Formats: sequence, C-alpha cells, structure tokens
Amino acid sequence: MAGSPLVAPTVDGYCGVRTLTEELARPLGPEDQTVQSMADVSPTKWHRAHTTWFFETFVLGPHQPGYVPFDPRYGFLFNSYYEAAGARHPRPDRGLLSRPTAEETGAYRRHVDQAMLAFLAQGGPATDVLALIELGLHHEQQHQELLVMDAQHVLSCNPLHPAYGPLPWVHRAAEFRAPRTVAASRAVAEHPGGVVEVGHSAGGGFAFDNEGPRHDVLLRPFALGRRLVTNAEWLEFVDDGGYRRPELWMSEGWATVNAEGWRAPLYWRTGDGAPITASLDAHPVDSLGNWREDPHQFTLAGLVPLDLESPVHHVSWFEADAYARWAGGRLPLEAEWEAMAPVPGDESEADGWYGSVWQWTASPYSPYPRFAPAAGAVGEYNGKFMVNQMVLRGSGWATPPGHARRTYRNFFPTAARWCVGGLRLAFDR
Amino acid sequence: MAGSPLVAPTVDGYCGVRTLTEELARPLGPEDQTVQSMADVSPTKWHRAHTTWFFETFVLGPHQPGYVPFDPRYGFLFNSYYEAAGARHPRPDRGLLSRPTAEETGAYRRHVDQAMLAFLAQGGPATDVLALIELGLHHEQQHQELLVMDAQHVLSCNPLHPAYGPLPWVHRAAEFRAPRTVAASRAVAEHPGGVVEVGHSAGGGFAFDNEGPRHDVLLRPFALGRRLVTNAEWLEFVDDGGYRRPELWMSEGWATVNAEGWRAPLYWRTGDGAPITASLDAHPVDSLGNWREDPHQFTLAGLVPLDLESPVHHVSWFEADAYARWAGGRLPLEAEWEAMAPVPGDESEADGWYGSVWQWTASPYSPYPRFAPAAGAVGEYNGKFMVNQMVLRGSGWATPPGHARRTYRNFFPTAARWCVGGLRLAFDR
Amino acid sequence: MAGSPLVAPTVDGYCGVRTLTEELARPLGPEDQTVQSMADVSPTKWHRAHTTWFFETFVLGPHQPGYVPFDPRYGFLFNSYYEAAGARHPRPDRGLLSRPTAEETGAYRRHVDQAMLAFLAQGGPATDVLALIELGLHHEQQHQELLVMDAQHVLSCNPLHPAYGPLPWVHRAAEFRAPRTVAASRAVAEHPGGVVEVGHSAGGGFAFDNEGPRHDVLLRPFALGRRLVTNAEWLEFVDDGGYRRPELWMSEGWATVNAEGWRAPLYWRTGDGAPITASLDAHPVDSLGNWREDPHQFTLAGLVPLDLESPVHHVSWFEADAYARWAGGRLPLEAEWEAMAPVPGDESEADGWYGSVWQWTASPYSPYPRFAPAAGAVGEYNGKFMVNQMVLRGSGWATPPGHARRTYRNFFPTAARWCVGGLRLAFDR
Amino acid sequence: MAGSPLVAPTVDGYCGVRTLTEELARPLGPEDQTVQSMADVSPTKWHRAHTTWFFETFVLGPHQPGYVPFDPRYGFLFNSYYEAAGARHPRPDRGLLSRPTAEETGAYRRHVDQAMLAFLAQGGPATDVLALIELGLHHEQQHQELLVMDAQHVLSCNPLHPAYGPLPWVHRAAEFRAPRTVAASRAVAEHPGGVVEVGHSAGGGFAFDNEGPRHDVLLRPFALGRRLVTNAEWLEFVDDGGYRRPELWMSEGWATVNAEGWRAPLYWRTGDGAPITASLDAHPVDSLGNWREDPHQFTLAGLVPLDLESPVHHVSWFEADAYARWAGGRLPLEAEWEAMAPVPGDESEADGWYGSVWQWTASPYSPYPRFAPAAGAVGEYNGKFMVNQMVLRGSGWATPPGHARRTYRNFFPTAARWCVGGLRLAFDR
Repeated sequence: MAGSPLVAPTVDGYCGVRTLTEELARPLGPEDQTVQSMADVSPTKWHRAHTTWFFETFVLGPHQPGYVPFDPRYGFLFNSYYEAAGARHPRPDRGLLSRPTAEETGAYRRHVDQAMLAFLAQGGPATDVLALIELGLHHEQQHQELLVMDAQHVLSCNPLHPAYGPLPWVHRAAEFRAPRTVAASRAVAEHPGGVVEVGHSAGGGFAFDNEGPRHDVLLRPFALGRRLVTNAEWLEFVDDGGYRRPELWMSEGWATVNAEGWRAPLYWRTGDGAPITASLDAHPVDSLGNWREDPHQFTLAGLVPLDLESPVHHVSWFEADAYARWAGGRLPLEAEWEAMAPVPGDESEADGWYGSVWQWTASPYSPYPRFAPAAGAVGEYNGKFMVNQMVLRGSGWATPPGHARRTYRNFFPTAARWCVGGLRLAFDR
Repeated sequence: MAGSPLVAPTVDGYCGVRTLTEELARPLGPEDQTVQSMADVSPTKWHRAHTTWFFETFVLGPHQPGYVPFDPRYGFLFNSYYEAAGARHPRPDRGLLSRPTAEETGAYRRHVDQAMLAFLAQGGPATDVLALIELGLHHEQQHQELLVMDAQHVLSCNPLHPAYGPLPWVHRAAEFRAPRTVAASRAVAEHPGGVVEVGHSAGGGFAFDNEGPRHDVLLRPFALGRRLVTNAEWLEFVDDGGYRRPELWMSEGWATVNAEGWRAPLYWRTGDGAPITASLDAHPVDSLGNWREDPHQFTLAGLVPLDLESPVHHVSWFEADAYARWAGGRLPLEAEWEAMAPVPGDESEADGWYGSVWQWTASPYSPYPRFAPAAGAVGEYNGKFMVNQMVLRGSGWATPPGHARRTYRNFFPTAARWCVGGLRLAFDR
Repeated sequence: MAGSPLVAPTVDGYCGVRTLTEELARPLGPEDQTVQSMADVSPTKWHRAHTTWFFETFVLGPHQPGYVPFDPRYGFLFNSYYEAAGARHPRPDRGLLSRPTAEETGAYRRHVDQAMLAFLAQGGPATDVLALIELGLHHEQQHQELLVMDAQHVLSCNPLHPAYGPLPWVHRAAEFRAPRTVAASRAVAEHPGGVVEVGHSAGGGFAFDNEGPRHDVLLRPFALGRRLVTNAEWLEFVDDGGYRRPELWMSEGWATVNAEGWRAPLYWRTGDGAPITASLDAHPVDSLGNWREDPHQFTLAGLVPLDLESPVHHVSWFEADAYARWAGGRLPLEAEWEAMAPVPGDESEADGWYGSVWQWTASPYSPYPRFAPAAGAVGEYNGKFMVNQMVLRGSGWATPPGHARRTYRNFFPTAARWCVGGLRLAFDR
Repeated sequence: MAGSPLVAPTVDGYCGVRTLTEELARPLGPEDQTVQSMADVSPTKWHRAHTTWFFETFVLGPHQPGYVPFDPRYGFLFNSYYEAAGARHPRPDRGLLSRPTAEETGAYRRHVDQAMLAFLAQGGPATDVLALIELGLHHEQQHQELLVMDAQHVLSCNPLHPAYGPLPWVHRAAEFRAPRTVAASRAVAEHPGGVVEVGHSAGGGFAFDNEGPRHDVLLRPFALGRRLVTNAEWLEFVDDGGYRRPELWMSEGWATVNAEGWRAPLYWRTGDGAPITASLDAHPVDSLGNWREDPHQFTLAGLVPLDLESPVHHVSWFEADAYARWAGGRLPLEAEWEAMAPVPGDESEADGWYGSVWQWTASPYSPYPRFAPAAGAVGEYNGKFMVNQMVLRGSGWATPPGHARRTYRNFFPTAARWCVGGLRLAFDR
C-alpha cells in the first residue's frame, strides 16, 4: 500500500492539504476561531497557525537557507508539545490569545506557503526533508480533524446552538448531519484465531512511527460485529439503567459517571437543547421524561433530532466498555480489528470501518515490540504519549479524505468524549 | 449638585453614553471582544450586550407596549446578576460564547437604541421610568470603565503585548499612556476632625443608592496627602523589601503575596515584557536585576518604560495597605476622603482627586446608616455586595467623563488588581 | 474593670488556666486528639502544645536564663502564625502529625509548667513579662474555646455521632447539651442614639490590643432585641424558604448557600443523624419531610432532638444577616451592642449577653481609630487579621469562665459556621 | 503449585494471618493508626477493621445462621469499594474517623475471630465458603502490605522522622532497614522468545482471578537483568540530569515531574531529613549540594543514610520507565518477567525476584484473554480496576511471607510512589 497521493510531498499534495484547512475554517468567524472551550480544545486559529509553524520550524528553518520567519515570537506561541523545539505558551491558555487575529493567521499561512512552494519548486529536496514534509501534511490532516472536533465542542457550549454547516467532503446535504450506517443485521464475522501479522511494513508507503514495526500477534478465536453500535441500541442501554449500574463499569469509569453526571453521550440533548446530565434527575417528569420522548443531539448542523439509525458517537472509552459488557460482548483488541478490517476505500465504508466513527478497542496504547521513535524533535510525535490512553481504530466522519489506514493507531484518554468515538462489538469464541 | 447633563435621560444624554461605548469597543477586533481572561473579566461584546439588555429588560419590556425583544434568548445570556430577572448564563463561561458575534451585538444595540429613542421621543416617560433610564446610563458608564479595564487585562495576557491606543477622552497622545500627576511636594492637608456630613442628599441630582442617606460622621484630627503615591515611591517600597516583609501585611494579604508570587504592581514588566513575579526570584542576576535597571509597564499603549512620576496603579488593597504601613501612614477612611475632596472639575483633577487613579480607603464597604435598597430588581444593584469588599474613592483614567462624584463609592475585593486602584496617604494627628 | 483574677499572671492564675485545658482534653482519646477535620480546625493535642509553645517562646526562652527547650523541633511544629517567630509547619497539615502523641504532649506541658512555676516563684518578673504571661493565659483561654469548637467539629464528621460529654463549667447535666435562653417576650430595649464611648480604656485591667483605644462613636436611635433568636424562630425562617430566596442574601452569601448546599444551621440533623443539606432536596418525602417532623442537632452530648427554645447557633454571618433581613430588622453595630450590653456576670447571662452564643454584628473587623499593635512578635496577635472578617460580641457556651468582657471583639470570616455564632436583632428607630 | 499452607482456610491459617495483622499494627500508637496522610492511604485501624468486615460481610453474615454483627453501622464505615455491598463512607474521609478507636477496633476483630473460629471448628464449611475464607486471608495479606506502606507514608510526613521498627519477618536487625540485593555483575539472562504459557492454571491452588486464565503469549528474543537496579545506579541517573531531561520521559510523566517537583525517589532525603524536591533547586550550594554529599532516606527505621547497594524503591512507573530509557533498555513485559522468574522460595530471593522490591513492567493492567470476574460482590475484587494502571511483578520487603506467586499481578497507577516499586531492566535481542 503506497501513501495516499492526496498527501504526497508535492506541490499538489501540499496545496491540497493546506487549502483544505482554510476551507474547514471558513464557516467559523473570528470569534469562533478564538474560543478555547476546555483545556483539551484548541482555538481554530491556533490549529491554523500551529500546522504552519510545523513547516516553518522543521522544514524551512533548518533546510531553506535565508528563510526569514514571519514573526520570531510565533515559535513560542505555536509550539504544541515539542520539548526539543524550546519553550512554549501553556496549552490551557491558548484561548487567552486574541492576537494574532484570524486574518493575521491567514497572512502567516500565506507567508509560509509561498516559501514552501518555492522550496518544493526549486527541485529535489533531499529524501529526509521530503519525509518531513510528508509528515507535516499528515500532521496537518490530524489537526483538520481536531479543528472540526474542537469547533463542534466550542459551538456546543453555546445556548444558541449555532451550526457549522456541511463538511467539504460531504456532498449530499441530507447526510452530513449524521454519519449513517448501512442497514445491516446484527450479524458478526468470525475469525479462527492463530498468529496474524499486524502493523505497518517498512517501505510500504507513509505511516506514523507508532504503526510499526510489523509483527506477529497470537489471537484466540473471536467474532466482530459487522456493523457499528447505533444510537437506537445505545438508547436501550440508557433505558436499561446503563448509566446507573456500577457493575457494568470500570471503577474509575463509575467515579467519572458520578463526578461528571453522565447520563448519555456527550452531545445528546433534550428537545430544548439542554445537555443530558444528572442535573435532570431531579426533574423526572418535566425534563428527563421529556428528553426521552423527543431526544435530540447537537451536531455540526446545530440541534437536530437524534438519528436512531446512526452509529453512536462521542462516547468515552469508559462508556463503550460498559456498553459492551452490558451487551454480553467486549471491545475488540486492536489486532483483532486489524485482522478483520478491509483496506480503506469506498466499499469498505459500507460497514462503517472507515469514515463513520472511530472505534474504541480494548487495547491500551503501548509501543509495538521493538518500536523506536524517530531521531530529533519529530521523534516526540507519538512515542511519548504511549501510556494511560486507549487505541481507536478506523476513522470518522471528521477524518479528512486520504488519511485512513488499516494500521492507523488513534488514541485518547479513557474519559475523552469530544473525539468521534463509537464502537463495534467483539465476542469470544 | 445636579446630575451631570452628559448622563441625563434625554435623547442627547442617551445617545452620548451609548455612542461612547461603541467608540470604546472600536479598537478591539472581534477576537479581542471575545476573550475572557479570568472569571472577573467579561468580554467586550458581553459588556456591549449586557448594557443593552438593561434597557430592554427594565425599560422597554415593562414600559413600552408592544416592544418585541431582539432575541428572547438574550435575556438568559446577558443578565449579569439580577436574581429577580430570572436564570442566567454562568459568569465564568462568558468567554465560551463566540455568538452572538461582535457584529450581531452591534445589531442588538441598534435595535434597542431605535426603540429607546422612539420611547424617549414619544414624550414624557413617567418620572420613575426616567429614573430607570438615568440609572441605565450610569450603569453603562460603569461598564465603559469595566470594558477598558477588562480589555487591558485581556491584552496583557498576550506575549505579543498588543496596544489598545488612546482613550477617546484623552486628547494629547503624549499623555494617554500614563496618568501623570502634578509635580507636588510631599505636603499634606490638615483636618481638625469633628462631626462632618457625608453621603448624597436626597434630591441632589443622580447618585447610586449606596451613596446615601446623607449622615453625620465623627472624625478625629487627621491629614491627607495632597497628591497620590507615585511609581517612583512604590519602587522604593519594592527595593526596601516591601513584598518580602510579612510584618507590613495583613495576614491574608501575605498569604496572597506568596500564593500569587506578587513582587510588583500587576502590570509592571521586565524590559522584555515578562510579569514581575516570584518566578523571577531564581534569576537574581539576569532577569530580576534586569528589570530594576529597565522597569517597564503594560499599558493601553502596549509595553512602555515605567513612568516614575505617574501615580502607581493596579495595586490591590492588600498592597496599598502594606505600602501605607511601610510609609508610616495609613489609608484614609472614606469619610475623611470625602471631607477633604473637592467637587469634580478640571481644577480638582490637578491633585489627582479625580481622573487619575481610584484611591483605596481603609473603609469596608458597608451600608450607610438607614440604607435601604430600591424596590424591584434594580434594588440588587448595590446592596447585596456590601460585605468583604473595600471602598475606593475619586475616579480613574478609565472612568468616563461625567461619571465622578464626591460621594461616589466604588468597591472591590481586597485582592483585586485589575481595577485602576492607587492610593493617597493619611496620617493621624 | 480590673482583669479577671481567674486569669491573673500568678501561680494560681497560671495553674487554673493550664489545668482547665487538660480537663477539657480529657474526654478526648488519643485518636480524637489527632484528627484535623478541615483546615480551620486544629487537633486537640496541637492546641495543647501550641499554648505551651507560647510560654516557652515568649516567656521562658527570652526571660529565663538557662532554660532548655523540651524539644527544639517543637518551635517549628507549634508556631501558629507568628512570622517573627520563624518558619512553621503548614496549618492544613496539622492532622498529619501523629507525633508527638497525646501523652508526649502532656509531658511537654508538664516540662513548661514546671519551668513557669519556678519562674513565677522566683519572684517578681518584670511588668512587661507579667503582661506577656497574662497575655499567654488569655491566649490559652481562646484556645480552650477553639479546642471545644474543633472537637465538636471532629466528632460531628463521624457517622457514629460520638458524644464529648458535659463541659467542666456546666454543673447541671440537664443543661449542658443546649444553651437555654430565658423565656422572654419579643421585647426590645431602646437607645436614643448620640455620642457614646466604646472600647477598652488603657489602665482598666487586661484586654486584647484590638479592644482599644477607647473612643467616641456617633449612633442613631435604635433598639436591640432583649433576647437571642431561637431555634424555633429559625425554623420559621427555614419553613418560609429562607435558604431558597436570593433576595434575602448578600450576593456572596447566596453563592455560598448554593455551593455548600446549606439548608439549616451547621449541626442540625435529620432523625438518623444526616446533615441537612441540598442533597436532601431530591428526597422530598422520605428524608427532608422526615427531618422537619423530627429535627435533631449534633451537640457535645451527641445526636439529640433540636431544642426549640434554645438560641440558634452555628450559623454563619451570611445566615445571620439573611435572617435579620427576613425578620424585618438588621444585625447590630458592635458599638450599639456595647452601648446596651451589661458587664459580664451571672445576672447578665439571663438575657443571653454572655455565656450562651456569640452574637454576630454588622461591623466589619477594622482597627479602632489610632489602633497600634504591640511591639514584637505578639504584635501579630490581632492587628494582621483586621480585614474580611466580621465582629461577634458577647461570649458563648464554649467560652471559659472569666474570659468575657463587654469590650471583647471576637471575629470570624463571613462563612464560618463551626464557631458558636448566633444573633440578637437590631432595629432602626 | 498448591496454595501456601500459611494462608489455608483452616484454624491455623486463619489465626496465623489474623495475628500477623495485629502484630504489624503494634508498633503504631492510637494516633499513628488514625492519620490518613493522602487519599490513597488508609489509617492503620481502618485496615484492621476493613479486613474484619470482609469476613463478617461475605462469610459470617450469609453463611453463619444467627450471627450478630458487632455493630451494624460498621458495614457502612468499612466497606472499601464493593458497590454490591451497599453504600459506604467516602475513601478520602477515612482520616476523619477518630472512632471506633484503635482499641475498639481490636474488640471488633476479636468478636469476628471468635465467630470465625467457631464457624471453622463446627466442621466442614462448604467448598465455596472455604474459597471465600481463603480469599479473605489473601485479601488480608494484601492489606498487611498496604498497612505497612501506608504507615511508612504517614510517618514520613512528620518532621520528627519517627521510626516504625523492624518487620516481624525480618530477623536480623541489620537488614530490616534496607532490602539488600545480592552482589551481582551487571549480567543478564537471555530468552530466545517464542510461544510461552503464562498465567495461573485452574486447579493449581489459590490465585486471584486476575491471574488467569492460563494462556499462550508470543515473545520476541529478549534478555532480563539478573538483578534489580540499585540506589547507586539511580544516583547516576540523577546526576546525569535524569529528572531534568524531557526526552527521557513520557509526556504525562514529564508533566508530573514538574507539577510535583520530583528530583529523586519518594523517600530520599537530605541529611537533615528534607524531601528532595524542586524546592531545593533554588539552593544550589547549601542544600541540594548538601544532599548529594550526604544522601539519606526515610525508612521504617527512620532517617538513615542512603544504602547505595540496595535496590531502588518507591519510584513511580514514570520514573522506572525514564530510567530504563536512560539506561538503554526498557521495562520488561509481564509475560517476559513470568517466563524468566523462578518459583518463590528462599533461593529465588537471592536475585531479588521476590521479597525485595516489586518490579514495574511495561504491561498495562488489562484482562487476560477470556478473563471473567467471579460472580457476586467478590467479583469486584480485581476486574473493575483493569484500566489506566501498570502491572508490577514479584513481591517486596513489605509483602508478608507466603503471599508471593510467579503469576501474581500487582498493579498501581503510573504516578504512584508510595508502593514498594523498583525495577529490573529488559533488553531487545
């Protein structure tokens, strides 16, 4: 499998990715681009600037002689977490920065784009620099998804329920608001177990360092759901007391349910747009009863009725794990998922493997055997996060085209809900 | 003393105040108007909307038949603290609201202004409604000052040190960046003590309810500094270990000094713009020494050298109290201040009584004898804050013209530094 | 008024006070003496050691040649807040110290007592040293009251509701559990206003520095309740929605009511001993209804039925202020209280002025005119706390005999409930 | 491998385990037994009561007809985390409970012991009840280790550095203070990789449910250190800037280093007993330099010089992981550890596999394939903690005799330091 041509380190690849970021930011006004609604969220214009900083810091600065940075102070403002790249502005304070403005951020992008295009045009960057550019493009794609997730969270905090609108890669208006799944039976696909090979092969096109080395894994016989768990199924879990029965939950998950007042997925809403939390418990008739009769969800299209056939999303690992237990199954191991998943492509999206919702697995995010991070600052890309997080597989409706891989390892902490996390069940055989 | 004609409940008065608010917001872009840099701060566009909500809620709604609110959901978003006016959006979350945008907020203002002008034009609102409108204008003036204070705080959090520019009421560019004091000796003015009358007389023009009733107070002989304490004097305090000597401080103040790492007034800066806090203590030579050789401050003009002749400002009550103790004096009682202060006017500004910095007093903010709040929701205006705060007298460089009164009682908690608080010394005789 | 002979700096006075501390600690086992139930509370054995440290540090160390401290490390452990006496163990960590044990603390006390008795016996300490000893005895009396308050709080956190038992100064078992008030009409006593003298006169026997200087205050005509507000009256306030009506409360008080879930005084309980807080709101029938049918309180006698005729106590200033507003009155100024209060003595206790509950006033704790703290470390005794607290007058059931004075100024923050705070109403005339 | 006879569900086994708990508590006075020094720590007397509650709740209550609980309220106080066993007292508040006293806790233990001995003596409890008793004994052994760990933490918070004394299972006084390792070369033992069987076999004697099912694991060739990392080696890491080089750390670990100021293992101390934290950084010469010249540690024997030949312990997973990276190795997988470890026994302790320090592994604590928790409340024993923790293998100096197994899976969160965690290096081959 070669890397996607959409993300190649060429003029076309570069322009395609960079343009898409700006297209994604366009529905968001300067105010929207400024807000940081929680520490995990970054403002839109921060994403736009940080992805630009990546090319300036790792490509132009070291490799383009005579390059003049747009503003030397941006190195401090837009470094995310690269210790080797020096001091940086604290993450939880990104929402304090009204400057540079959204417009100034655009100028920064254009400055770097011009330099990058000249750099690419002057012919033949060395292989290792091309690899850095390719990494920068995949990095920017990750931030495209984060930009969308974060914007949804920002808008969701507003009692006015503002809509973002359709994503560029969704062509049919009727579909963008909810990632539909193919109507399918509750069927599963069986796997006999045994030794399977997983992970990315060196030389097989672009992949993040955390996807390799390729290696053998020993599996027991198992079955995987052919399709994703839906909102309708999740409603049954809610109605069966799923959020009130400690025996279904990890201990830390149960503590989180109670501390945060979880009663439904993050963006489920009452008919008038209120979050579904424990604060509704004291209103058994008026509100809570209400929401069950008329469940809604907050989406990029604003407040809309809950789509029962759509895969559930914006659930945490704790919730996915509790649901699986309730349903008599479990979450799949990432190797099980990879052993069964098709290669990304239109047909593979039919069963929700890609492009619908990321699928939580039972696998903690640990290094593969003999994993070694890359040398230099970009070596901080993945390796240093390999603890206290869980792997998600596939890709989601917010993942830009060309970014999915069968070996892709996404990861989030067990309580994260603002990512597009859903699930597919697994069963022992 | 009649109320200022600048703030009369007339078409002219209304337009003057309302226009000034928009003028104050103009140097601030949509991003600047969105950020809430701490819970005490409100975004610019929130101030613009909340002052508008006041007229909609207390004047147009109840008194203009057929008035249609601009957006019924704004009642929830822009109520500040009026329990009687219903539920409201939580104060610390104002910075989460990217909508309504700055532009939409302008439309809201224009909608209400139009209705208010029609209301005023249709002739002869009843006296009590005129009183509400007058209150609304004085209320908006208070928020004009808050808007400026809050914007300064937002910009101060940005490592780029952006400038706001001159305030509309400062005509000479050389002066706006620092409120200069008249060169004066360290002279004091003496008062023999005895019974003095303080507070606002009923029927004497507009005043907030907390300024009355007028009543007698028994004073001992005392003297007040003829001028304000300056930055140069405050530097002596710093150099003498003022922030490191517990015997100068209230116990709670000393705990705050240590918890917050206070080492200088809020907006004092090193030459490269870093705040002067305890984190510099570990760098005795490079940075801390540095800042003493080249002290700067963050102002509306951005990062500028510290003006030694200017009155110190942005100090908390804890700091003002410690300074006074160090200087062998004390803070004045508010009655002492009122007994000595002139009526506001150009000549009175010469000695810094008004228009320079608010002056912390030794008086807790308590109700005057026989104080009773007004009936209805506007009764919440002042009375419910009369505990755990200290009174400031005079007015500051951010106070809009026409807002100062000799009887004015401003108040902030003892650790507040983002208000324009400075001091004038008092001495027992 | 001379100082109480019970607290004189003589062998008898010293022994009397020191012995009473140990008597107060006796019902508390080693475990009880160790627990710190919140940062404001200190463990019993800490009180026993700290009061001992006072004599060692301020009397024996500087004034008794050759004195050898019991353990040089205790200076660090048992300094409370005297900056001039050096570094100290953090207050919130006092409950981490299992050593010195309760028994070792007793040995420490005996070591210092022996040295003190020798010091007193060797004849004629200088006047200023006698003054320090007298201060140390009054200081120890304050800690006797704190010891009792703190022990009540520790025991109140225990679902087993353990009892402390009767205080040594309560002779009739039937009475110790609740401070009864004299049955009295709702009558008030009138005062014509005018200039009154308040505060302690120099030379008039022992008083804390904060009680002087004596000075004139100008009062308006007012009336004071002849007796204290009772539990029965407070129940009416509760039943009338007192804890649910924001218009009765200071803004900060209302925020506290909601943050803490206050619904009744601190130690009121349901019949099965549960605190009366907002968590009961969700159980309208079973529990909350329950508690109204069978109200209880946690006292030194354990869990007992609420005594309706007893003065309410363990209410914060916020609650006392809200109650007074609800009742159509207000809290008295401390000068009003002092102008009307009798001198302490058996007969004066009849109307609850002393020995029942401390009475919250409307007066912030500020320095009297021309107040100056004593020189040296003991100057930190009172002055540095004169901000953000309110004055209480009288004395309470936990105040040891001989400690009350008409000029006594007790003080606590506005949200403090574990002190013995109640109220007497005032009315404008 | 049959279960250890020391922990058999017989009269002898029961008495042996129960007596040892009391022996472990004996050096701790009532005050020591009361303190909870952090939320993770439980008071000694709580451990004594909770282990007793286990037998009362799961054995005597359901299986001994006519059994009368010692105090029905203890069910609430001493349930740790069993949701199925009803409501319970909040964990962080265990230190608020001065009652029941240490002595009353002893009476509780004797009451239950008497009933248990009668129950065992009356002959032939059913197999499943015997299994519960056996579980209760192993449970109590776990709490024996926790009791020791927690007591060490409580005593470590005291500036007086009190000693606990030797553990009952350490016979030679010279050795109890530090777990010595056998002098050994830096040799490693090699393993060729391949499929190995790990986990506990059903029917192979007692094991916790989390140790099974036994299953195959596929390993790559690797080598394991023959001995544990020592304090001397850890000092090299410290001296080489180990705690100041972000590239050695997981991102979350680095954040923890900075938030907590870690500079050395938890109980390392300066010569005068101060913790080695970032607060020493500002004193390069006097203190920090000092501690390097004279490093100490806080142990059960109090403050003693750091034993350089002893295995390092009281390091978190974050620290162990950073050290391994610094040393050019990695932490072993738990299956690698199990594949190489001997069965516990005197000879196996020579290389530190057991009885010295628990050894952090690279394995997240996840369920083994096909793991299913036991039915009923005891099913909560292990399974619900299988997320966000890391596995430790072996056993430590605080582990009671007879408790170690080659398949034993201990687990703690990645920042935990008060457990006896050390490490053995692994290397890829």
